[in-house]
Amino acid sequence: MRRVVIIGSGNVATSLAHGLSARCEVAQIYSRHLGHARSLADAVGCPDATDDLQALVPDADAYIIAVSDDAIASVLASTPDNGALWVHTSGSKPIDLFAGHRSRCGVLWPMQSFSREVVVPLDDVHFFAEAGDEATLPDLLALGHLLSSHVAVAGSDQRRWLHVASVFSCNFANHMWTLADEVLKSQGLPFEALLPLIRTTVAKLDRLSPASSQTGPAIRHDNQVIASHLSMLDDDKREIYRLITESIMNRNPIDDNAQ
Amino acid sequence: MRRVVIIGSGNVATSLAHGLSARCEVAQIYSRHLGHARSLADAVGCPDATDDLQALVPDADAYIIAVSDDAIASVLASTPDNGALWVHTSGSKPIDLFAGHRSRCGVLWPMQSFSREVVVPLDDVHFFAEAGDEATLPDLLALGHLLSSHVAVAGSDQRRWLHVASVFSCNFANHMWTLADEVLKSQGLPFEALLPLIRTTVAKLDRLSPASSQTGPAIRHDNQVIASHLSMLDDDKREIYRLITESIMNRNPIDDNAQ
Repeated sequence: MRRVVIIGSGNVATSLAHGLSARCEVAQIYSRHLGHARSLADAVGCPDATDDLQALVPDADAYIIAVSDDAIASVLASTPDNGALWVHTSGSKPIDLFAGHRSRCGVLWPMQSFSREVVVPLDDVHFFAEAGDEATLPDLLALGHLLSSHVAVAGSDQRRWLHVASVFSCNFANHMWTLADEVLKSQGLPFEALLPLIRTTVAKLDRLSPASSQTGPAIRHDNQVIASHLSMLDDDKREIYRLITESIMNRNPIDDNAQ
Repeated sequence: MRRVVIIGSGNVATSLAHGLSARCEVAQIYSRHLGHARSLADAVGCPDATDDLQALVPDADAYIIAVSDDAIASVLASTPDNGALWVHTSGSKPIDLFAGHRSRCGVLWPMQSFSREVVVPLDDVHFFAEAGDEATLPDLLALGHLLSSHVAVAGSDQRRWLHVASVFSCNFANHMWTLADEVLKSQGLPFEALLPLIRTTVAKLDRLSPASSQTGPAIRHDNQVIASHLSMLDDDKREIYRLITESIMNRNPIDDNAQ
């Protein structure tokens, strides 16, 4: 695993390119947009950028496909099986995508939320690896360990469940903060005021399960506060507030001894 | 603001007593339960604990009522207006509670989730202050600044909005983690694998707004993944997944240039 080609220049590709360039040679970066490929290549000291899949260097040890889920199949269809290790990085696409296209293949899924603006240090990220066959697993794990010290084997089915859970944990929790931000902005109040509260809520997860550290009007069945909140919100937020409050209440039936 | 009396010995009172005792004299602590008052007084080096509202020291500069929301009114009804500054610490109770009971009054609401087991360092907590009248505001702010460097003026109405925002940010985000935990448990997978992801998601808020750091299938309008996830979930989670996904999509109309 000395020379790696990165296919993609988006959020995931950017973090992978930064991580890999410190541990091996990033030989080439491909993007549909040459400018994107070139600026990522420049940022990580890679000598070769291209927007032409036919111009991929033929002799790398591994090719990492970090494009949008729907574009993976067309990348595979447009490029030859050169006997190298080909890897995709999608949480939701099965390894079967490679079937009939590549002899040595695998999935390396970083369970992390990447954005182009922030290069995430990969060493704390948990990667889940699935190899096309037993013989390919050692090379796949070697590639994974260039990226992070947390690499676990997980099949396509487990990856799907981990992906669903990460959507709730990350994307949906983050959307709750977006809604809070909108509520505060509408009143000229700063979102930053919530950050200490959010940090404390997360810190509790080190010691308690989320279910057992829940607080607030829903778990207290405080119908007066809930009704008042519902009356303050616009349609979109009101429906979300109502549904999540119900979901919390259903898991925590009223307890006459509770205060 | 040299001598302060604390009325209460619960989650909020405990953190306030610890914070204040470093910056001024905590002259007395009251609790319905003398043992609670005494152990908090001992912990912060306060010489006087009482369970008798008639025995409050008469000459303190400020009296902070940090009892449960429903008990504030009866504390006010049982104690005289001695001309000092009287303050309650509730996010959801209006300042009107003092009307007819106190001439100099205010609210100092710490927007934080306190528990008795963990003494929260107050200096990072944002306090929201509302004074009964303009003349009282300077003393109220002076008291607030003994507790934290983050003290902003906010009326009862703004406090209600901040409370709604904190329900979304804290209680509802935490419920997303509860749902993720349930998803993983059903597959025998550990919730702990998500913690690095959750921590990174929160860390992004230091630099980006939640809306601009959103990722995942919903913001990408990745209908194939969304349909697959919906098919995996039980009724309760499916409805929440569907509604939040729609809410994210509506805020992020599809962009043909997105990769």
